[in-house]
Amino acid sequence: MTKFGEHWEKGFRDLVIDAGIKAIGDAGLQGNEISAGYVGNMASGSLIGQEHVAALIADHMGLNPIPVTRVEAACASGGVALRQGYMAVASGMHDFVVVGGVEKMNDLDTNEVSQILGGAGDQEWELFMGATFPGLYALMAKRHMHEYGTTEEMLAAVAVKNHEHGSRNPYAQFQNKITIDMVLKSKVVADPLKMFDCSPITDGAAAVVLAPVEIAKKYQEQPIEIVASAQASDTIALHSREKLSEIKATQIAAKRAYEMAKIGPKDVDVAEVHDCFTIAEIMAIEDLGLFRKGEGGKATLEGRTGLGGEVAINTSGGLKAAGHPVGATGVKQAVELTWQLRGKAEGRQVADAEIGLAQNVGGSGATSVVHIFKRV
Amino acid sequence: MTKFGEHWEKGFRDLVIDAGIKAIGDAGLQGNEISAGYVGNMASGSLIGQEHVAALIADHMGLNPIPVTRVEAACASGGVALRQGYMAVASGMHDFVVVGGVEKMNDLDTNEVSQILGGAGDQEWELFMGATFPGLYALMAKRHMHEYGTTEEMLAAVAVKNHEHGSRNPYAQFQNKITIDMVLKSKVVADPLKMFDCSPITDGAAAVVLAPVEIAKKYQEQPIEIVASAQASDTIALHSREKLSEIKATQIAAKRAYEMAKIGPKDVDVAEVHDCFTIAEIMAIEDLGLFRKGEGGKATLEGRTGLGGEVAINTSGGLKAAGHPVGATGVKQAVELTWQLRGKAEGRQVADAEIGLAQNVGGSGATSVVHIFKRV
Repeated sequence: MTKFGEHWEKGFRDLVIDAGIKAIGDAGLQGNEISAGYVGNMASGSLIGQEHVAALIADHMGLNPIPVTRVEAACASGGVALRQGYMAVASGMHDFVVVGGVEKMNDLDTNEVSQILGGAGDQEWELFMGATFPGLYALMAKRHMHEYGTTEEMLAAVAVKNHEHGSRNPYAQFQNKITIDMVLKSKVVADPLKMFDCSPITDGAAAVVLAPVEIAKKYQEQPIEIVASAQASDTIALHSREKLSEIKATQIAAKRAYEMAKIGPKDVDVAEVHDCFTIAEIMAIEDLGLFRKGEGGKATLEGRTGLGGEVAINTSGGLKAAGHPVGATGVKQAVELTWQLRGKAEGRQVADAEIGLAQNVGGSGATSVVHIFKRV
Repeated sequence: MTKFGEHWEKGFRDLVIDAGIKAIGDAGLQGNEISAGYVGNMASGSLIGQEHVAALIADHMGLNPIPVTRVEAACASGGVALRQGYMAVASGMHDFVVVGGVEKMNDLDTNEVSQILGGAGDQEWELFMGATFPGLYALMAKRHMHEYGTTEEMLAAVAVKNHEHGSRNPYAQFQNKITIDMVLKSKVVADPLKMFDCSPITDGAAAVVLAPVEIAKKYQEQPIEIVASAQASDTIALHSREKLSEIKATQIAAKRAYEMAKIGPKDVDVAEVHDCFTIAEIMAIEDLGLFRKGEGGKATLEGRTGLGGEVAINTSGGLKAAGHPVGATGVKQAVELTWQLRGKAEGRQVADAEIGLAQNVGGSGATSVVHIFKRV
């Protein structure tokens, strides 16, 4: 992956090529051995006026004439691209597949970017009526607080932990530690969410190479196996959901993923979850079954989700501190977990991590993708 | 599929739902038997301000919580979505997959739409410098004329044939017949391409349901088998190509498709090819091996590609007359061929059609997808 952050000196195509070349090198391959490519990208059409980005990337990486495909599922674009790559290998159609994710977001001003990101929700029924994404997640936070007694301190504890983790990750956008007090005193964006409850606007790219396990072993000393890939959908608009304090698509995808991997939540050593807002991480660790419903906030405040806790959540710094270049996030989660399972997450290594889980959400939860990774 | 044309009274979501419900009904299924969905769509983010459209569609079709994925490859989005659906079935992950394609293009003015469609090429190096898509294809036409003696009459003959076919297809945008003289006298868009050499701006949607053949037989009396699915890429910018008078990605995808289907071009009875401009159809039928390189124009002028000719090309009316709602086109090709292979293409039926081929191109040829269909 590239460093996540503000890349004023690099264009869209530079970012993804940097990440892609690193991934292909790490896999022990030459570019001409790759037989298909996928790229997760949400909004290049609006952000940089460019569609057809898979073809653009293949061209500039010298990967022609292999088939390359862009996948879009809002903020879950990266995770969904990973799943398509997984199926391309599983179908027997391709042996070596590169999966990238990229977003270049800083070239427009924040208001324009916010409007474009609104395309992840229901433009006609939500955004056009004045809702914003911080607003939608604020509704979920309010309801979670009402139902389970979750507090603003608990929300803040997610951000504090993820900045602490980010401070250990050279690829993270933010490497500064923060305190609960700083979060609580930061500017309100959409009550109860404050500036430090929100993930930033980020440029960045990430990539991985997939292959059948037996083949991967011949090329890489430490291949990591994808033991489950599951995805589910829910209503695009929040107002159509049965409950606001959970992401049902995550619950359904997680259930399928655990069945596919033949493991349970207790077996997970390290997880990258979708903390676009602090409340999202609390819902995620509950919906994934890592903590009981309603106890995610308390567990976070008690330090049970940090390095050295029961299950390390977002060792990369998460979307909050590592940054959230939308289409890249789901692939970055796979990169971080690969490093963790290989024992190569220097400065933030979870001791003896064997099983990692990634959860990537699109919009306010209309798409959720769960992957489980295992040391081979 | 919906009728292709100007749908002022229907929104994006209405169109794709109309097509999806028809496809699921035709397959003899209930919605809750579908286990995954794909949708080809190029530019909803720019055209209607909405990304995350697979989730939007699943929601409004009542398909939650199945995994649904949007695929984008410019004008080849539909064909590429079909290929992902094919791999989802082939991977064993899903038995019943619905694949849709949709574009709602008439809500913006033509200049805005042209600029958005420019995102299919290299914005930075082609469009920003003043090129347009008619301009790019005009360059290819000029070169083809120079190399092979192709004439403006031959280009016009493509449009005349496709309007003749469109006049027989109730789903086509244009159902009026035209003459070579009308094409030649129409307004020049980008020399040598005139208005009637160009496909129109269109609203529309199409959908198909995929399943393993043995299972499909239990639900549908006339299932059609996908015997090949191949895709290739080329440079996104025209100026980087070795030759301007061919689409190399089509040649490569076709070669793979014929190998996979264990047939040759001579076995094809009916083909839907990507005639975004008349020159594109001429290059397509050559690059697919249906006619020798350089002879596509002459063959068309001689009537060898019409109904009753050697191989019927674009019985639907093609992009030219049936219309080109970008993301829907590749899926519409599959719908037309399904009707042809079932003997249900009333008024335009190719006698005894057994094998059909679809070729769908993204941009000026950076993506090409070829599918071959066969009567079971």
